[in-house]
Amino acid sequence: MESLPERLRQQLRFIAEADKLKHIFRQSYLSDQSRRENDAEHSWHLCLMVLLLAEHSNFQNLDTLKVLKMVIIHDIVEIDAGDTYIYDEEAKRTQVEREAQAAERLFGLLPQDQSQAFHDLWIEFETEASNEAKFAKAIDRLHPMMLNYLAEGKTWTEHGVTEDQVRTVNRKIEDGSASLWNYTDSLIRDAVAKGWLPRSS
Amino acid sequence: MESLPERLRQQLRFIAEADKLKHIFRQSYLSDQSRRENDAEHSWHLCLMVLLLAEHSNFQNLDTLKVLKMVIIHDIVEIDAGDTYIYDEEAKRTQVEREAQAAERLFGLLPQDQSQAFHDLWIEFETEASNEAKFAKAIDRLHPMMLNYLAEGKTWTEHGVTEDQVRTVNRKIEDGSASLWNYTDSLIRDAVAKGWLPRSS
Repeated sequence: MESLPERLRQQLRFIAEADKLKHIFRQSYLSDQSRRENDAEHSWHLCLMVLLLAEHSNFQNLDTLKVLKMVIIHDIVEIDAGDTYIYDEEAKRTQVEREAQAAERLFGLLPQDQSQAFHDLWIEFETEASNEAKFAKAIDRLHPMMLNYLAEGKTWTEHGVTEDQVRTVNRKIEDGSASLWNYTDSLIRDAVAKGWLPRSS
Repeated sequence: MESLPERLRQQLRFIAEADKLKHIFRQSYLSDQSRRENDAEHSWHLCLMVLLLAEHSNFQNLDTLKVLKMVIIHDIVEIDAGDTYIYDEEAKRTQVEREAQAAERLFGLLPQDQSQAFHDLWIEFETEASNEAKFAKAIDRLHPMMLNYLAEGKTWTEHGVTEDQVRTVNRKIEDGSASLWNYTDSLIRDAVAKGWLPRSS
């Protein structure tokens, strides 16, 4: 390949590396239970949800572009760090360290200004440091809830997850959207009633 | 499930239906050639490219949020209409009709205002009726070019696609970004030099 401007070369290098997100599989199944979902598919589905559901956020003047940026990049660190199941307490102990190293390497492939911008956005998302981050996190939690419900609780059953755990982890949806938490709460109660989610272990 | 506001119910119904985009496979392989890519993964990758490459567009004051909306929804019609390979002239003859019907059914699941907004955005994208649409189309063309190059021309070889065809189809990248077309042109020439793309059939 003949010489490209260094800035464009760095951007294209990162875009090529990001292709690996399609190999990082989550615990959630697709709604038809045919296979697990990968991080790239998940991230796209979050984008669509943000476009349609932003009106249900708790906040006026939510910056939708910023929320989209967060959900587009939020799982890229998992290319190096792997997916950490939200109910896996042991894996969660090393998650922060693993993901920080991954962010360093992966975002470090980009030109300095874009590297810094992605890093800052990712930290803002992870620490729920803004209204946009709170809403992005709410959508990131709601999405696997919806898929699990549509897949008749397959992931919960496989991992022996209980109503209490689901309620504790997903309660934070309320910080981003009271009405989407109400919906989540009704999903949880319905999943328990249908026998897809035991009350306690 | 207890009663939900009708508007939210319609939105959630559409989001659940959109899960099917993860089953629509394209001709392009992932860069490691392990399997074909699906539309949801492709759409996410375009989002990332838009964030990083918007600065290379031909246009000042490009509305990045609008470009993102376009790439997020641009392939949803393929849930009903299927993927149409850009070098398949026969399939392309029925593509407009098939996709128009799909848009009618799929976007029709949404509340009226969001249905109209998605339909309008999709038409604007398809007809390249704005700077944002021109840039979104450029990225939509550049992405499979990059993947095919990284996969050593696997899709081109399988379908007997030639340099002339690739050049004709992708020339439109120039309408969205002169510098990304220069890059594409260098990819094409390099692919020919490496024997991944024959000059003519």
